[in-house]
Amino acid sequence: MEEVEGGILAASGFSASTVSCGIKAPKGTRKDILLIDAGTAVAAAAVFTTNRVQAAPVLVSKEHIRTGLARALVINSGNANACNGQKGMEDARAMAAETASGLGIPAEMVLVASTGVIGRPMPMDCIREGIREAVGLIGKGEGTDAARAIMTTDTVPKECSVRFDMDGVTVSIGGIAKGAGMICPNMATMISLITTDAAIAPGMLNKALRHAVGKSFNCITVDGDMSTNDTVFVLANAKAGNSIVTSADSSGYKAFETALTHVCTTLAKKIARDGEGATKFVEIVVKGARSDTDARVIGLSVANSALVKTAIYGKDPNWGRILCAVGYADAPSDPDTIDLFLCGHPLTRNGMGLPLDEPLMRKALEANEIPIVIDLNMGDGTATIWTCDLSHEYVTVNAEYTT
Amino acid sequence: MEEVEGGILAASGFSASTVSCGIKAPKGTRKDILLIDAGTAVAAAAVFTTNRVQAAPVLVSKEHIRTGLARALVINSGNANACNGQKGMEDARAMAAETASGLGIPAEMVLVASTGVIGRPMPMDCIREGIREAVGLIGKGEGTDAARAIMTTDTVPKECSVRFDMDGVTVSIGGIAKGAGMICPNMATMISLITTDAAIAPGMLNKALRHAVGKSFNCITVDGDMSTNDTVFVLANAKAGNSIVTSADSSGYKAFETALTHVCTTLAKKIARDGEGATKFVEIVVKGARSDTDARVIGLSVANSALVKTAIYGKDPNWGRILCAVGYADAPSDPDTIDLFLCGHPLTRNGMGLPLDEPLMRKALEANEIPIVIDLNMGDGTATIWTCDLSHEYVTVNAEYTT
Repeated sequence: MEEVEGGILAASGFSASTVSCGIKAPKGTRKDILLIDAGTAVAAAAVFTTNRVQAAPVLVSKEHIRTGLARALVINSGNANACNGQKGMEDARAMAAETASGLGIPAEMVLVASTGVIGRPMPMDCIREGIREAVGLIGKGEGTDAARAIMTTDTVPKECSVRFDMDGVTVSIGGIAKGAGMICPNMATMISLITTDAAIAPGMLNKALRHAVGKSFNCITVDGDMSTNDTVFVLANAKAGNSIVTSADSSGYKAFETALTHVCTTLAKKIARDGEGATKFVEIVVKGARSDTDARVIGLSVANSALVKTAIYGKDPNWGRILCAVGYADAPSDPDTIDLFLCGHPLTRNGMGLPLDEPLMRKALEANEIPIVIDLNMGDGTATIWTCDLSHEYVTVNAEYTT
Repeated sequence: MEEVEGGILAASGFSASTVSCGIKAPKGTRKDILLIDAGTAVAAAAVFTTNRVQAAPVLVSKEHIRTGLARALVINSGNANACNGQKGMEDARAMAAETASGLGIPAEMVLVASTGVIGRPMPMDCIREGIREAVGLIGKGEGTDAARAIMTTDTVPKECSVRFDMDGVTVSIGGIAKGAGMICPNMATMISLITTDAAIAPGMLNKALRHAVGKSFNCITVDGDMSTNDTVFVLANAKAGNSIVTSADSSGYKAFETALTHVCTTLAKKIARDGEGATKFVEIVVKGARSDTDARVIGLSVANSALVKTAIYGKDPNWGRILCAVGYADAPSDPDTIDLFLCGHPLTRNGMGLPLDEPLMRKALEANEIPIVIDLNMGDGTATIWTCDLSHEYVTVNAEYTT
């Protein structure tokens, strides 16, 4: 497997267009509509937010993806179309219908996503016009434009594409993602779209996506808030010509799952790295837990601790906050067996503080990437969680978002 | 019931002393040892942190309070004596022993608490000397001195005392508390001491304390972090002369429970109001939940949301974040039945946004006290949660705590 250029358009057969229709900023200034066209009905799978409050486009896309097939994706940024009641549902359906009408296909073949502020009416006049314009421009968009069109508070576009071998055939997977705040496992205000030219049955595509999301997007957190709109879509158009994957036991499936997990993990880490106001990227490895699930719960407890995150921002080796967050996590741990390593330096052995070389640790904490290893010494469970620090800038960004 | 002066010394028969022994700041500058003496063995009850990582003084006090009796309390601020292994246990026992030796009583009659930085060796030379000095000064301390001696990042001392009638006899309860960060329900880095001259059996005292804590300290959150040291102690010396409470069905018990709950609630709200960096006090009332427990889970989810807290700091009526935090709480809610009120203004009806008068809401959010009412319209469960906003100053305080 090798990383290649191209992003969401790395796989053959997909085309895109982007438009600035005036949702996010005055028309013509910032791209806010993205249309992806697979050219024909292709295998599709998705994972959606588990928040009880679900945005209208999530509900509509859930209906449309039931067949395991889709042709096009339409996404807007700047308005989440959440908490808009019946009108929101009508607007999400209208986005699908407008796209379908332009492409001459049934509305059920269109998936919809929205991201932005919650509880604002959708400016449907702009959006309809924007979609019509996007249909006219299809095929003219580039991968990075696509990644830009779905950004909200993101500071950089996020894309990843790979080429790999499936049973002797070269296959590509490309993806884009957005999300910087309201990021928490189980799909935060994150949206990711992935395309591939692999030939894979919808059921296998769904299985591979669930595996990849569990190891990637569900292992990042910025602020512990899970949004109403989180969605990951994958479309597979079979253009690569590999023999179609219909069993999870095949070598083709394994190769595909590995490559898809790589793309999702790369995108997920880019989201954590671009967390609102982030100055540092933090990787938390929990090992020696009773189970992988326990390790994940403990890692997320540490990753979501405002006290741990502010200490890292302040380059403060205040490791007691890490042990404290391990202790209140809803998973077993024994305070008397924990070994903690921060930036590679051992800080506790069997839960007890080792002599602290504070100047050394402050120097180590100046790095942009902060590794934390927590060994519970209780079993074989492991998990890796990615997050960022909590800075003054996070507060600034979020105190002023809707204005 | 009426509020009175006196704090921890409002009830007759208790005496206090405070000392600056040099744990928190150079000796003689900031008070860091508090000794409370009941003069004789009295009824005692306590509630401790549920964190798996528990500080040494928590473990020692758990042993000492088993009899339901205690004579004295010794507390230091500036060092939490947590994650210090066997040495920490020896130091906590030494604090009790030193106090006991000074007062001429068994060590088991002394309760111990510590608050401050985790994982630092206790400066036992200063502490032993400080305790000896405190024993010599017993009776010379005042209530507010006591409240000051237990402060860490608190900006104001927190005390509350009341006088009320128990079966025709006037009884007093007085309490102090500390805590500003690492505050989360189920006892954060919070410590509270309460004294009363009521005559009440240890079992009834324990029952009343658990009730009061459930309605007060367990309903506040500053940053969602639960500490290793949280403790609430209550001592009852029976000096008031009421007939001793031995049954929860008695009118005396009811009067006592009500007054104790008032003291605990007042102290808890003072902690939320003094949350690290707080500029606003936030009261979240959840009603119409399936149960009181569900209401509490939902209220805490909203109270712990960094996005809700930063929006309030920014005077931003971004109510979608509130509904979002309701939706991801681990308790049932129906997005289509939620009525939300912010500063008394209705913002959603049946989960759908009402027209937003943004200038009016921004004006309303300039207040120092922000009421949020969330009516789920599903049942009779209610809960009230108190918290504060999340400001730049929170980040500053916590990025620099141990330095």
